[in-house]
Amino acid sequence: MNIENMLTYDPVQWQLVAHILILGFASMAAGFVYFMTTMREVAPRYRIASVLGGIVMVSAFLLLFAQWQSWQTTFTFQNGEFVRSEGVFSNGFRYLNWLIDVPMLLLQLVVILGLGAATSRRLGIIFVGSGVAMILLGYVGQFYEVTNLTALWAWGGISTVFYIILLYYVWVEIGRALPRMPASAAATMKSIRWLFLIAWTIYPLAYIMPAILPTADGVVLRQAIYTVADITSKVIYGVLVTKVAMDLSKAEGW
Amino acid sequence: MNIENMLTYDPVQWQLVAHILILGFASMAAGFVYFMTTMREVAPRYRIASVLGGIVMVSAFLLLFAQWQSWQTTFTFQNGEFVRSEGVFSNGFRYLNWLIDVPMLLLQLVVILGLGAATSRRLGIIFVGSGVAMILLGYVGQFYEVTNLTALWAWGGISTVFYIILLYYVWVEIGRALPRMPASAAATMKSIRWLFLIAWTIYPLAYIMPAILPTADGVVLRQAIYTVADITSKVIYGVLVTKVAMDLSKAEGW
Amino acid sequence: MNIENMLTYDPVQWQLVAHILILGFASMAAGFVYFMTTMREVAPRYRIASVLGGIVMVSAFLLLFAQWQSWQTTFTFQNGEFVRSEGVFSNGFRYLNWLIDVPMLLLQLVVILGLGAATSRRLGIIFVGSGVAMILLGYVGQFYEVTNLTALWAWGGISTVFYIILLYYVWVEIGRALPRMPASAAATMKSIRWLFLIAWTIYPLAYIMPAILPTADGVVLRQAIYTVADITSKVIYGVLVTKVAMDLSKAEGW
Amino acid sequence: MNIENMLTYDPVQWQLVAHILILGFASMAAGFVYFMTTMREVAPRYRIASVLGGIVMVSAFLLLFAQWQSWQTTFTFQNGEFVRSEGVFSNGFRYLNWLIDVPMLLLQLVVILGLGAATSRRLGIIFVGSGVAMILLGYVGQFYEVTNLTALWAWGGISTVFYIILLYYVWVEIGRALPRMPASAAATMKSIRWLFLIAWTIYPLAYIMPAILPTADGVVLRQAIYTVADITSKVIYGVLVTKVAMDLSKAEGW
Amino acid sequence: MNIENMLTYDPVQWQLVAHILILGFASMAAGFVYFMTTMREVAPRYRIASVLGGIVMVSAFLLLFAQWQSWQTTFTFQNGEFVRSEGVFSNGFRYLNWLIDVPMLLLQLVVILGLGAATSRRLGIIFVGSGVAMILLGYVGQFYEVTNLTALWAWGGISTVFYIILLYYVWVEIGRALPRMPASAAATMKSIRWLFLIAWTIYPLAYIMPAILPTADGVVLRQAIYTVADITSKVIYGVLVTKVAMDLSKAEGW
Ligand SMILES: CC1=C(/C=C/C(C)=C/C=C/C(C)=C/C=O)C(C)(C)CCC1
Ligand SMILES: CC1=C(/C=C/C(C)=C/C=C/C(C)=C/C=O)C(C)(C)CCC1
Ligand SMILES: CC1=C(/C=C/C(C)=C/C=C/C(C)=C/C=O)C(C)(C)CCC1
Ligand SMILES: CC1=C(/C=C/C(C)=C/C=C/C(C)=C/C=O)C(C)(C)CCC1
Ligand SMILES: CC1=C(/C=C/C(C)=C/C=C/C(C)=C/C=O)C(C)(C)CCC1
Ligand code: NA
Ligand code: NA
Ligand code: NA
Ligand code: NA
Ligand code: NA
Ligand code: NA
Ligand code: NA
Ligand code: NA
Ligand code: NA
Ligand code: NA
Repeated sequence: MNIENMLTYDPVQWQLVAHILILGFASMAAGFVYFMTTMREVAPRYRIASVLGGIVMVSAFLLLFAQWQSWQTTFTFQNGEFVRSEGVFSNGFRYLNWLIDVPMLLLQLVVILGLGAATSRRLGIIFVGSGVAMILLGYVGQFYEVTNLTALWAWGGISTVFYIILLYYVWVEIGRALPRMPASAAATMKSIRWLFLIAWTIYPLAYIMPAILPTADGVVLRQAIYTVADITSKVIYGVLVTKVAMDLSKAEGW
Repeated sequence: MNIENMLTYDPVQWQLVAHILILGFASMAAGFVYFMTTMREVAPRYRIASVLGGIVMVSAFLLLFAQWQSWQTTFTFQNGEFVRSEGVFSNGFRYLNWLIDVPMLLLQLVVILGLGAATSRRLGIIFVGSGVAMILLGYVGQFYEVTNLTALWAWGGISTVFYIILLYYVWVEIGRALPRMPASAAATMKSIRWLFLIAWTIYPLAYIMPAILPTADGVVLRQAIYTVADITSKVIYGVLVTKVAMDLSKAEGW
Repeated sequence: MNIENMLTYDPVQWQLVAHILILGFASMAAGFVYFMTTMREVAPRYRIASVLGGIVMVSAFLLLFAQWQSWQTTFTFQNGEFVRSEGVFSNGFRYLNWLIDVPMLLLQLVVILGLGAATSRRLGIIFVGSGVAMILLGYVGQFYEVTNLTALWAWGGISTVFYIILLYYVWVEIGRALPRMPASAAATMKSIRWLFLIAWTIYPLAYIMPAILPTADGVVLRQAIYTVADITSKVIYGVLVTKVAMDLSKAEGW
Repeated sequence: MNIENMLTYDPVQWQLVAHILILGFASMAAGFVYFMTTMREVAPRYRIASVLGGIVMVSAFLLLFAQWQSWQTTFTFQNGEFVRSEGVFSNGFRYLNWLIDVPMLLLQLVVILGLGAATSRRLGIIFVGSGVAMILLGYVGQFYEVTNLTALWAWGGISTVFYIILLYYVWVEIGRALPRMPASAAATMKSIRWLFLIAWTIYPLAYIMPAILPTADGVVLRQAIYTVADITSKVIYGVLVTKVAMDLSKAEGW
Repeated sequence: MNIENMLTYDPVQWQLVAHILILGFASMAAGFVYFMTTMREVAPRYRIASVLGGIVMVSAFLLLFAQWQSWQTTFTFQNGEFVRSEGVFSNGFRYLNWLIDVPMLLLQLVVILGLGAATSRRLGIIFVGSGVAMILLGYVGQFYEVTNLTALWAWGGISTVFYIILLYYVWVEIGRALPRMPASAAATMKSIRWLFLIAWTIYPLAYIMPAILPTADGVVLRQAIYTVADITSKVIYGVLVTKVAMDLSKAEGW
């Protein structure tokens, strides 16, 4: 059971989370419009990156819309505060949904790294494999966040091992690709590198929040971190990937 | 009446099913984006395969969205566990919906097998005929899963006869088509063959679950099997079919 | 008031109707994807047939989605059976919605009959006129299905007169067009002729059900007939019309 | 407060309104499919007419869907009749929504009248100005329909002044354009002229209904008039406008 | 907590807000249709302006739809007036959503100002930076509107500083671009300049309403101001931007 269900919220706290969650799914809808309408502006080779972006937007939109509705139906405003009154609020939805988003986001990267078919396949398998392992380990761990903090730390720790493997390959492969790229594409690629590092690394912060700040403020901070991470790791990341694809298309005379 | 209605679920069990069902319909939405945006990237002859894929995605999305909502409204969280409180949860929705999906998935295969018009028609009729029989027999059987296990096994058994006929034709026809195909297409076709066998054969596992594991864990396992089978037999299968269509288009100089 | 509101249903009966209604609107969504994505594959002259098909799919989807929701909210599961508990379930929605579908379906036929502008206009007016009369007369009649069976038969009888006029013109005009058509188009046109006759003639069966089988089983049969008729008279019919349009386009060297 | 809230309805009356309202929004959805899929079939100069049609369809669909839902949630079926039980049903939604539809419908006309830029601007301003005045005056008036019939007549009267101005310009400008148009376009333009006059003039009938027939039957008649007027003044009107645009495009050798 | 929750509303007041909010999201849906269907009618360089417009429409539609639903579920009609009965109504949704809209609207302007890449980047950063600061400061302030008017004025004051910076750059940059533009584009650009000034400056009026008119009429006025500002600053503004893009495309011989 997630810690959100164990706490009560004053109106400002409850509203902050409600506002943040709408910002979340509204950004995904906005991103979907961007990816679909700019798909034709890159060379055919790179269009799959916009398709992958569109897929992430649709799946994350549905997820975050469900989270926002659950936040509204689960808690009811009774004599001045919001208390859990119907069903349970669950962050677990996010973890299983990442099984779609994380592989797609990593494949977007593979598309613009311009590696040969074989290396792309190999890198794709490492990416998807470590990503799925990271997510499933974290998914199991988050169930213990109220009942057994040690288990929370343990599962989270093993998951982080896979995250580090994944982060290493992302960092190194982008590094290898930089020299081969035209200047403008390389510049954007560098910002993608840092954005990836920061955006993905704040997810574990949200995961471990119950062990650091098990309060209503902690819940607000967690949902804010999730949403900032979602917008940067999916929408802004996707816009930068499309920018690189545009630069590469121009460089290849398309 | 399905066994889901006879049991109660602890929060983790109930949430696992809720998370799995969202993963289900989110994957179908993602698949729809993929099929619609990659339709133009195959020769006109093969575009009907993407259309069929889009049809399966839309019908499965609507179905799985209804299943997820029903899981949330039918069960209510009362003193620590989820109990049935309103209406009934029903897997039967899936069976009647397969009447759309199964024929479309089989026709997708016929399109890339590249048989002559006559053979395609004949194979199409065998496929759709045996598929519909399999589904309707199973549909009747699943109504008995709580009241009469013998009837469940009996109807399931007759249904499996049609499944085996269907599986035989799929296996043999792919086998016949392999030599005629360019290398890369043939490689993907082999994985389609195995994916078809595995993904379709785990559906009966979910059907017979009440006779093997009539518990809340059994329900979680069943809904997980259904969703894994749905994603592999419709989304991943469809992506592989599109890949074959791309290879064939390239080979035919499109 | 429709007979559905006067009866109670055991779980299997209630679920059968719920499953059938989802199959209904899922097929309409599937049909919409088909018509929109295959619109470009016929000569410009015939694209209006796909547009008309898309219109029928959208209007029937909205109608059948409303019917499915009403079936779920109107009846509640209390001590083992489903009883009417909130509002009324009403088949009348279908009749007024046919005011959109029936004219569009008939105009689809006019488009592929390839008559001159004048004859098309004249036939169009006969079709739409008799169709609207048939529907409105039946719409009035169905309100009496519980209170006054004589009125039900009377209104139904007058409505059938218009149906016969309409059926006569459809049968004759297709007959006249057959010789002018290339072989493959003519073959499909023959199946359209029989499909039209069967699919449209089972609607009155559903209309008169309360006079033949005024029981819960009668309701299940009625909703099954409606859905089978909807899928055949709108989706399968539309696919066949598109096939004829494709054959005609090829024959005209498009 | 609208009169709908002051009355109770027998099942047939309540269902008639429910059926009519679905026919309303289903027609708008159908119209949207028509305008979007036939946009490419007119010369670029006239495509804005289909865009304007699409805009009207979307805004009217959302409005009429809200009206249908409000009709279902506001009234509850208690011992044989439908009584207001939750919130209020309000026709005012329609009036404010006409602030989008009326200007768009009039601009559709300006597009096919083929006037010079300056005259089009001047006519556009007269149209939009008088239309907005007409609607806002009527909007204020309809609030008094239960409490103060004199105010209802007074506000309606002033609103009608602007309607007559608007109708005069529509009638005269179409008249001026007729001689300049090819035969087929002129024929359709004449029917647009009459359709406009009849469809728009029945709206005030619905507005004044509480002063003529303040009964449940009056409410049914009012909602029927609104829906007939909506379908004719927006959907059928839009189809005719598109037909004129097609004729003009052909005449200009597109 | 926003002042809306502290008051009760007579039917006319409640309905006025409900009607205004529907007009809001219906206009955004209409705007989305306009931006998507007219995207191809400007030179490729300017199409990003329509994409940005589409993004604003989608995000504002979702926001305003949620506001309309919240207005209906939060207040219940009890013995003659509407009283808060369930959850809280919150304007804060708007502020966080502006984090998407305000940057996109400003970037739309940058696109048609036709500055060099470097200046565009610098201007873009100033715009987005000051815009986000303005919104977040106002967001904090609006939480105090019932409990602490001084804080409301204070936070609003600091926010206005950033608004003035932003307004200054918008005014000056448009001024600089005017001479470089063809006549017709320059004319529209001037109206964009004034529209921007007026539409954006009435938002603070809605923000400060509780300090000027803390009554039910004040709430109606506030929601009306918000909606008028939304429609002018997003929809009408976007149409004018598209018009400038069309003029520029024509001038550049596209
Ligand atoms: C390291 C770590 C985690 C990392 C999660 C990440 C990196 C998630 C990224 C999600 C994305 C990018 C979603 C976009 O849709 C967990 C699982 C929280 C568990 C604890 C350890
Ligand atoms: C053999 C067998 C069955 C097989 C079902 C299958 C193979 C379903 C496939 C469904 C698909 C592919 C759906 C995609 O939308 C049943 C009916 C469960 C009943 C028992 C025996
Ligand atoms: C003869 C007859 C009828 C015929 C109805 C028909 C033929 C309906 C067709 C509907 C279609 C094709 C809908 C597709 O959207 C009624 C009215 C039931 C009333 C009794 C007599
Ligand atoms: C004369 C008059 C009226 C006319 C209304 C009209 C002509 C409305 C047209 C609406 C359309 C065309 C909507 C399509 O979306 C009112 C305001 C009822 C009030 C009383 C007097
Ligand atoms: C100056 C000022 C404000 C200005 C807000 C503005 C200018 C909002 C514009 C919003 C738009 C354009 C939204 C479109 O989606 C606040 C924050 C109300 C707070 C008080 C001071
Ligand atoms: Na609640
Ligand atoms: Na997430
Ligand atoms: Na419940
Ligand atoms: Na399924
Ligand atoms: Na119920
Ligand atoms: Na029907
Ligand atoms: Na009700
Ligand atoms: Na209307
Ligand atoms: Na309420
Ligand atoms: Na706003």
